[in-house]
Amino acid sequence: MAVYTQVSDEALAGFLAGYDLGEALAFKGIAEGVENSNYYLETRKGRYILTLFEKRVNAADLPYFIGLKQHLSSKGYPCPEPVMGLDGQALRTLEDRPAVIVTFLDGLSPRRPTAKQCRSLGEGLARMHLALADFKGHRENALGPSSWRRMWDGRGADAEAIQPGLEAEVNACFERINAARAFSANLPRGTIHADLFPDNAFFLGEAFSGAIDFYFACTDALAYDLAVCLNSWAFEEGNATDASRLEYNFSKGSALIAGYQSVRPLEAAEREALPALCLGSAMRFFLTRLSDWSSTPAGALVKPKNPLEYAARLAFHRKIESAEGYGA
Amino acid sequence: MAVYTQVSDEALAGFLAGYDLGEALAFKGIAEGVENSNYYLETRKGRYILTLFEKRVNAADLPYFIGLKQHLSSKGYPCPEPVMGLDGQALRTLEDRPAVIVTFLDGLSPRRPTAKQCRSLGEGLARMHLALADFKGHRENALGPSSWRRMWDGRGADAEAIQPGLEAEVNACFERINAARAFSANLPRGTIHADLFPDNAFFLGEAFSGAIDFYFACTDALAYDLAVCLNSWAFEEGNATDASRLEYNFSKGSALIAGYQSVRPLEAAEREALPALCLGSAMRFFLTRLSDWSSTPAGALVKPKNPLEYAARLAFHRKIESAEGYGA
Repeated sequence: MAVYTQVSDEALAGFLAGYDLGEALAFKGIAEGVENSNYYLETRKGRYILTLFEKRVNAADLPYFIGLKQHLSSKGYPCPEPVMGLDGQALRTLEDRPAVIVTFLDGLSPRRPTAKQCRSLGEGLARMHLALADFKGHRENALGPSSWRRMWDGRGADAEAIQPGLEAEVNACFERINAARAFSANLPRGTIHADLFPDNAFFLGEAFSGAIDFYFACTDALAYDLAVCLNSWAFEEGNATDASRLEYNFSKGSALIAGYQSVRPLEAAEREALPALCLGSAMRFFLTRLSDWSSTPAGALVKPKNPLEYAARLAFHRKIESAEGYGA
Repeated sequence: MAVYTQVSDEALAGFLAGYDLGEALAFKGIAEGVENSNYYLETRKGRYILTLFEKRVNAADLPYFIGLKQHLSSKGYPCPEPVMGLDGQALRTLEDRPAVIVTFLDGLSPRRPTAKQCRSLGEGLARMHLALADFKGHRENALGPSSWRRMWDGRGADAEAIQPGLEAEVNACFERINAARAFSANLPRGTIHADLFPDNAFFLGEAFSGAIDFYFACTDALAYDLAVCLNSWAFEEGNATDASRLEYNFSKGSALIAGYQSVRPLEAAEREALPALCLGSAMRFFLTRLSDWSSTPAGALVKPKNPLEYAARLAFHRKIESAEGYGA
């Protein structure tokens, strides 16, 4: 939850004067996203989200993210559509920060997705990949495999502190990832969301109604995006409420993969690489969480997420030998 | 900013099944209010705010607050209108907390009110008092004069810690308040909002469009409500940005009083009591802030408000001899 930047009355009025939207009828900070400040904005023209980009987002990347949403919107894909100012620009400045207005997207983020929602999400992910096939933008995955080793160096003690034995477990996962590198080098690539967690997907009932928060989007293996989703949608607490005991829900995972394949069937090489991609994407989230966990002061405004949730996924993936292990 | 309670998908669906509103099309935590959890809720029937009451609100008071909003709504006064469940009840239960759905009110809370907005707010406050004249509910002001001495006892050192000399200043204000008690005993009483800060008032342009957050409403002197508003609307930073140097903006204060009197003229006794009421209401907010300031751990989720902002008001009011001093 986050509203880092307050917007003065004059600044908002001045900002809206640069659009053909009319004056604000409502303007409320919303508790969504941890990187930026988001406001619900209503004018006579409709409902919008106004985002101010805080310093964790690289301003040089913003035209890419905005172009990506414009591309998806132009294809009829459900996502927030950037609204142009009177000067034809969507990316503008408010309270000394880059800012953008996007259309409001109906739907709810599931707290505990159902298998039907997982299937629909898989379809939505594959449709996104197809809709982005002719997107011209390019962005390296700043949190891709080449960054993992660097993030891990010197963190062994932090890992041991939260769970004894975890350092050796992570090192073993790295060996496995390195051994699998050869598979994943030639997988079909394209523009991926790279962070399509349940928080970032909307549903109306059981049907996927759109995706938000494209601020990790990049150019990478398409099947890696599926692996990110398997990690974030198909693991759940079984009988235990302990973060280290998350279980893979086979029904949900296989529904997600089946939904994806109903739109874009996986190639043989992608199926073969799936366990390594799942292990790698679990590593990426484990490492960023471990870093946030160790560097966030106690009692901070935004609570860091528990890295042990991803340590549990690492342990699961390390035992999986083939795509069948995920129900593919 | 506050969302203390997460609502599960099943709990929300089950809750909405108790209303004639249809399913949720959007549901977002909003960063508004510091006492309760608030969500923006949209269904095919319209836009709403769903509030879950956290433990700082006394559940026994909730029927009073809801009845008050129902009364105001029935008079056409702009405020959130409680929505009845299928069983005719507005106060229900969600995630083990008392919860209510109210209609969404258009408008923006001003960050720095203009004199025109102050005038319109004064009119809106007086219209509220008139609309509540036949409201049957009764609630003691738990933060009224009889509570102040108790809140102050033992806090002298805390006051000195934030500003040397403040303990003596507060004691001098208490003497003044006690001396004035005789005036204020027989003032016209009724139902007051008691917390109509700019955060709790909405405007469309310069025009007051409604009031929210009635959770301090109570039965007390009507002119005390005006004094609360003078404190919260008419003081501002002059050239200094130092909390202890807030200044009374005479134009804004006199506009607020004039707006109030254009709807409900003050009686002579109310004019006479105005300086003591302003001093008393400044004392009430000074004391609750001092208490929160001293008891909130560093780095807590909700930052306490600076009591010095109200110490500055106390110092100002102590020098005012008559209502003319406020531009009345």
